[in-house]
Amino acid sequence: MATIKEVAKEAGVSVATVSRVLNKSGYVSKESAASVKKAIEKLNYQPNSVARSLYHKTSNMIGLIIPDITNPFFPELARAVEDVAMIYGYTVVLCNSDQDPDKEKKYIDLFKQKYVDGIIITAHGSNSELYIDSKIPIVALDRISDSSLPTVVSNNYDGARNATKLLLQKGAKNLAHIRGPQGITPADDRYQGFIDEMKEQHFDYIIEESAFELKAAEKLAENFFNTHAQVDGIFCSSDAIAVGFLKVALKRGIKIPQDVQIIGFDGVAFGEMIYPELTTVAQPIYDMGALATRLLIKIINGKETEQLKYEIPTKMIERGTTK
Amino acid sequence: MATIKEVAKEAGVSVATVSRVLNKSGYVSKESAASVKKAIEKLNYQPNSVARSLYHKTSNMIGLIIPDITNPFFPELARAVEDVAMIYGYTVVLCNSDQDPDKEKKYIDLFKQKYVDGIIITAHGSNSELYIDSKIPIVALDRISDSSLPTVVSNNYDGARNATKLLLQKGAKNLAHIRGPQGITPADDRYQGFIDEMKEQHFDYIIEESAFELKAAEKLAENFFNTHAQVDGIFCSSDAIAVGFLKVALKRGIKIPQDVQIIGFDGVAFGEMIYPELTTVAQPIYDMGALATRLLIKIINGKETEQLKYEIPTKMIERGTTK
Repeated sequence: MATIKEVAKEAGVSVATVSRVLNKSGYVSKESAASVKKAIEKLNYQPNSVARSLYHKTSNMIGLIIPDITNPFFPELARAVEDVAMIYGYTVVLCNSDQDPDKEKKYIDLFKQKYVDGIIITAHGSNSELYIDSKIPIVALDRISDSSLPTVVSNNYDGARNATKLLLQKGAKNLAHIRGPQGITPADDRYQGFIDEMKEQHFDYIIEESAFELKAAEKLAENFFNTHAQVDGIFCSSDAIAVGFLKVALKRGIKIPQDVQIIGFDGVAFGEMIYPELTTVAQPIYDMGALATRLLIKIINGKETEQLKYEIPTKMIERGTTK
Repeated sequence: MATIKEVAKEAGVSVATVSRVLNKSGYVSKESAASVKKAIEKLNYQPNSVARSLYHKTSNMIGLIIPDITNPFFPELARAVEDVAMIYGYTVVLCNSDQDPDKEKKYIDLFKQKYVDGIIITAHGSNSELYIDSKIPIVALDRISDSSLPTVVSNNYDGARNATKLLLQKGAKNLAHIRGPQGITPADDRYQGFIDEMKEQHFDYIIEESAFELKAAEKLAENFFNTHAQVDGIFCSSDAIAVGFLKVALKRGIKIPQDVQIIGFDGVAFGEMIYPELTTVAQPIYDMGALATRLLIKIINGKETEQLKYEIPTKMIERGTTK
């Protein structure tokens, strides 16, 4: 690789002049700038990224903190962040937090040391002071909503109301909602959407709670189908929960969608891998990741965002688990 | 955050002495070293990571280049790499190459500029000169096998023979293998394992080819079941292909495993999400990622690896798509 000295020699200028051109700082004559640029091209000189980091206190890196990349929601999100980051010349440092505040804090400290330009984080809403302290631009994705950080979420409440409406329209009379863990904002919002729609339509309903996780949902479903034989419509707070209920129903010979209709929430890829395919309230996962990244880069570049909370509409995808 | 000057003042030594302690270079008296360490602890001083990068030409970062994080094989791999990297104090830069050699080259150039300490790459085997040129330690994962790079793969050939044996043991008489794309090493190795086992047992067989992708497999399966009604055992070169065949079979009312038995390859998470659950040749995905990362860190630290190719055994997981 060529050095800055070789560039200076080739261009017939001093190293300081080359440095001024590279850093776009200080006065350089048009002629010198042109010959430096020509020399850079000729020698295929690549300015040392680390040295520039130290000088500018930026690194062209974005930190992405997610709970767990093996949770099927996050690969598509990570892909969107990397795609958009790459367009703007940023690379992405991936961190799995397991939603452990200590791990999150450790990563944020590390990011500061490395002059990471900005952070996209998906986490619980409780520890937002941590982020605000950090002085690095941050955009929150999905799970935070009650903080003062710029946030991208999908409209969980409306999505849940639409799913509930669809089950009733399709003739289900005895509905159950399998809600996600209390205190997790999207789970609470989806629950509220279900409740409000049912109350408005004057129907009774059953509520059960499950972790956002297949095995837990399967265990709950075994019990559920023993005790709730009359239920003919189930709105699940995530696709993982819905798939757990679907598996147990099929194993017991319950006909889907004839006997029981099931709707999930998320729109992750495995909804299309099962048979019957899962009807679901799809979040625009890729779009959410892309928007968060564009917002972050805007903030990094010192621009204001138009709003603090971006709420993206969900989309009802009707497939094989509803009539 | 405390500065190096404040540490020097607190310790009663010069900035140069603090720097020598931090960089473990040059002579420092035991007393000075102790007081510097005490001052660092007291002030919670965090040495500037970027400055150290410039000095040592290392960054404590590992680059991870994979084809696409949304392919269900890679999230678990990425998770393993990040988990092990974190234990050794490294962060992970994630790059999706889409198996485009230009994108791979671009990332490797970028890694050089940032003094990334090492690279883990999953890609086709054709362009390995590219990596060897780069002077950064590299470990290859999964898809490369015929290069001079240290490589971690699973034993695809033996895994395929075991799957074929199992179908025959379970009473299947008319076997088909749905192979992956020709020229991709794991697909070729699995194909060879199937062929060799069938020849040894003197059975006829059918071979079809599919991309490692659900939609392509579904399309092929529609055709396949029209023309091959006698087939009662299918060994698929990936779980995605197997799930495509399973979906189409269920849609047509073919009883699985009574009428047709199906075995996949990979052991990705969605094999447990479907009903019946998929019998599969599981690769130890997490272990492969963890081993590759440990090897890379060994090489970064100037140690020799014991061998060039690490081949990890697969594991037969019998679930609901075999008798």
